[in-house]
Amino acid sequence: MADLRLARRAAGLSTVFPGSHFPSELDDGVIAFDSGFAAPDLLPDLTPFAEIALNAHRGETLQYSAGQGQPLLRDWIADLMNRDGCTLTAQNLLIVNGAKNGLDLISRLLLDEGDAIVVTAPMYFTAIPIFGVYGVEFIEIGQDEAGIRVDELEATLARRAAEGLTAPKLIYNVADFHNPSGVTMPLARRRALIELAARNHIAIVEDTPYRRVRFEGEAVPSLKALDTHGVVLHVGTFSKLVAPGLRMGWIAADPAIIARLIRLKAEGGSSALIQRILYEFGRSPAFDAHVARVRDAYRQRRDRMLASLDRELPEIRVQVPDGGYYLWLTLPVHVDGDRLAADAEAAGINLIAGSRFFAGATTGNRAPPRNHVRLSYSFADPDTIEAGIVRLAEVYRAMTAR
Amino acid sequence: MADLRLARRAAGLSTVFPGSHFPSELDDGVIAFDSGFAAPDLLPDLTPFAEIALNAHRGETLQYSAGQGQPLLRDWIADLMNRDGCTLTAQNLLIVNGAKNGLDLISRLLLDEGDAIVVTAPMYFTAIPIFGVYGVEFIEIGQDEAGIRVDELEATLARRAAEGLTAPKLIYNVADFHNPSGVTMPLARRRALIELAARNHIAIVEDTPYRRVRFEGEAVPSLKALDTHGVVLHVGTFSKLVAPGLRMGWIAADPAIIARLIRLKAEGGSSALIQRILYEFGRSPAFDAHVARVRDAYRQRRDRMLASLDRELPEIRVQVPDGGYYLWLTLPVHVDGDRLAADAEAAGINLIAGSRFFAGATTGNRAPPRNHVRLSYSFADPDTIEAGIVRLAEVYRAMTAR
Repeated sequence: MADLRLARRAAGLSTVFPGSHFPSELDDGVIAFDSGFAAPDLLPDLTPFAEIALNAHRGETLQYSAGQGQPLLRDWIADLMNRDGCTLTAQNLLIVNGAKNGLDLISRLLLDEGDAIVVTAPMYFTAIPIFGVYGVEFIEIGQDEAGIRVDELEATLARRAAEGLTAPKLIYNVADFHNPSGVTMPLARRRALIELAARNHIAIVEDTPYRRVRFEGEAVPSLKALDTHGVVLHVGTFSKLVAPGLRMGWIAADPAIIARLIRLKAEGGSSALIQRILYEFGRSPAFDAHVARVRDAYRQRRDRMLASLDRELPEIRVQVPDGGYYLWLTLPVHVDGDRLAADAEAAGINLIAGSRFFAGATTGNRAPPRNHVRLSYSFADPDTIEAGIVRLAEVYRAMTAR
Repeated sequence: MADLRLARRAAGLSTVFPGSHFPSELDDGVIAFDSGFAAPDLLPDLTPFAEIALNAHRGETLQYSAGQGQPLLRDWIADLMNRDGCTLTAQNLLIVNGAKNGLDLISRLLLDEGDAIVVTAPMYFTAIPIFGVYGVEFIEIGQDEAGIRVDELEATLARRAAEGLTAPKLIYNVADFHNPSGVTMPLARRRALIELAARNHIAIVEDTPYRRVRFEGEAVPSLKALDTHGVVLHVGTFSKLVAPGLRMGWIAADPAIIARLIRLKAEGGSSALIQRILYEFGRSPAFDAHVARVRDAYRQRRDRMLASLDRELPEIRVQVPDGGYYLWLTLPVHVDGDRLAADAEAAGINLIAGSRFFAGATTGNRAPPRNHVRLSYSFADPDTIEAGIVRLAEVYRAMTAR
């Protein structure tokens, strides 16, 4: 590299390319239980909607457009969220390039170097570097069967205040089918979290990729729906509901927050073409049918993976999620999830070691528990899921027999 | 707004929505000479390429994809740039969401709060807040008929060093058909700029939106083609060549720079769908025909605007550009461009006051010259251009007669 002077945030970044396994890069026979890829057979036929967008609306879809996003799509998303218990208008919404772009924009809005943020332990691991590049301190809070422990958070805030430490700027959480733990927060815990955040002027960043991928039970109101204080910044995405390749999502927040976020969204507006394709698909009868199909298919995959695990690896504890893409496995305490992930990958089963889901581990602040792995059931078809768990059990037996 | 604590960069941002005039928002009869919108009749028919992308390649285009961008598109861009004098491979390229996203990523890589950057006076005004949000100091350097004055820059660097001020981190420039001044740097000036930057470890950010929209004369090698030191970060875009609504561009730089930029590209990869549509269009015979059509059409528009100005407003000096989208008008020294822009807008002609193109003016550091306006000939059709200049001349006569 030329002798250029880098920013502090960039000087520490590794130049090693991240070793992702995209479907197109998988070797034959490899079974992908690692990332939350969409099931290939569930990707919808968007051709008719692209034709409408590219022909009937060419002057709009191929032209520059407003930074906030196209009004029709924002109206449609507001309606989608209002049918889910919110009271929003298009003015509450900013279109973003997927949820990760939303998390980054919120970080730009709120975070200065040295700020603290609250995360769960474990947490969605891809968000760790998104927040981390802002030079933040991660405050890890545990979860129980109702999600993030508000009592532990309250005690931590009090202890920090007593020690003269700054209050955290935001709380990052996935309240529905938490990634990776699978937990869905019940109503009372949600209310307690919002009240605590509002009292302490802490923003809540509610990440909701899986909210509409619910298999059973009634939906609990979203944090945004319960927020009477304006502290919740809600992040939504079309990646799980329609297709990840569109890179399209939204932030729902107070209009004054949205106005500032627009100014920070440097590319000046997401693709008007993709926005129109989504709008045309969303208002067509194909959309509801697609969502129903997605739910049924992922439920079937979850059930197949659970049944296979129960038969092949009964000593492993599994948190059964009511929706989403993932199973969070708790191995017997002496079994090393990092080693299991490495051995499984060598045997052609890609999965992710649980230790990667702890922010403290990545910053070297804390040793994470090692007896977890995360499995995704979203990408492989049901028969492959079963075959993969059989192979994983062989790896597990070989490893634990040594 | 809820009582949340914002980051320093965001606390100062106005919550006023930027008052852009998108084509869909224009009142009837308004003539848009302001922004660099694409001519509506030049937006290509991408339907056949979208059909290929959405059907034959659905498992790729609707799925997550690699952060660096799709290999086929990067190969094609490398080839495009190599036919323009560069020696690149796909490893030198990062796909970004339009050139503005590229400028923002480069800023994230290089800029810490308090750093200085070098810009031209005047400069592309949309880039001012993109750099500005990083808390940088703008060092404005003048231009002559050969572009940025390297002698003035060298003297400024020496003076700053003598005063103990930090060296700037980057030089931002549009070397071909500069926006707004229209100047194209000749070879000798380009070489002098690169040598000065390399000697001082300053990155050059070469923004090239209009490079392939050349109307006459031979292309001068790009700064990237001339860069033997690895100091040039080249930013390209498909906005002017294909369609702005795609929001797709690229950065060409050393692989070690690219690897770090990937880590900073928070959304995790631009839309695989848009990338495939571009690739299918780019490798089809339709692409070269489209580029030729774009050049011819914008040359015709430029010539019509120049002829109209020459007839209607002969006292206004115009820098005639060999390509691009804009005319930079120098008014008689006592005529106020800000007032002309306001009066013109009231009469239904949108144009941009020249004072907005000076970074120092936006930070309150320096009073910009007031006797300029920028006209874009890209959006209006030739007859509308002529009618608009006639109306602009009436506004000008009424204003200067007072």
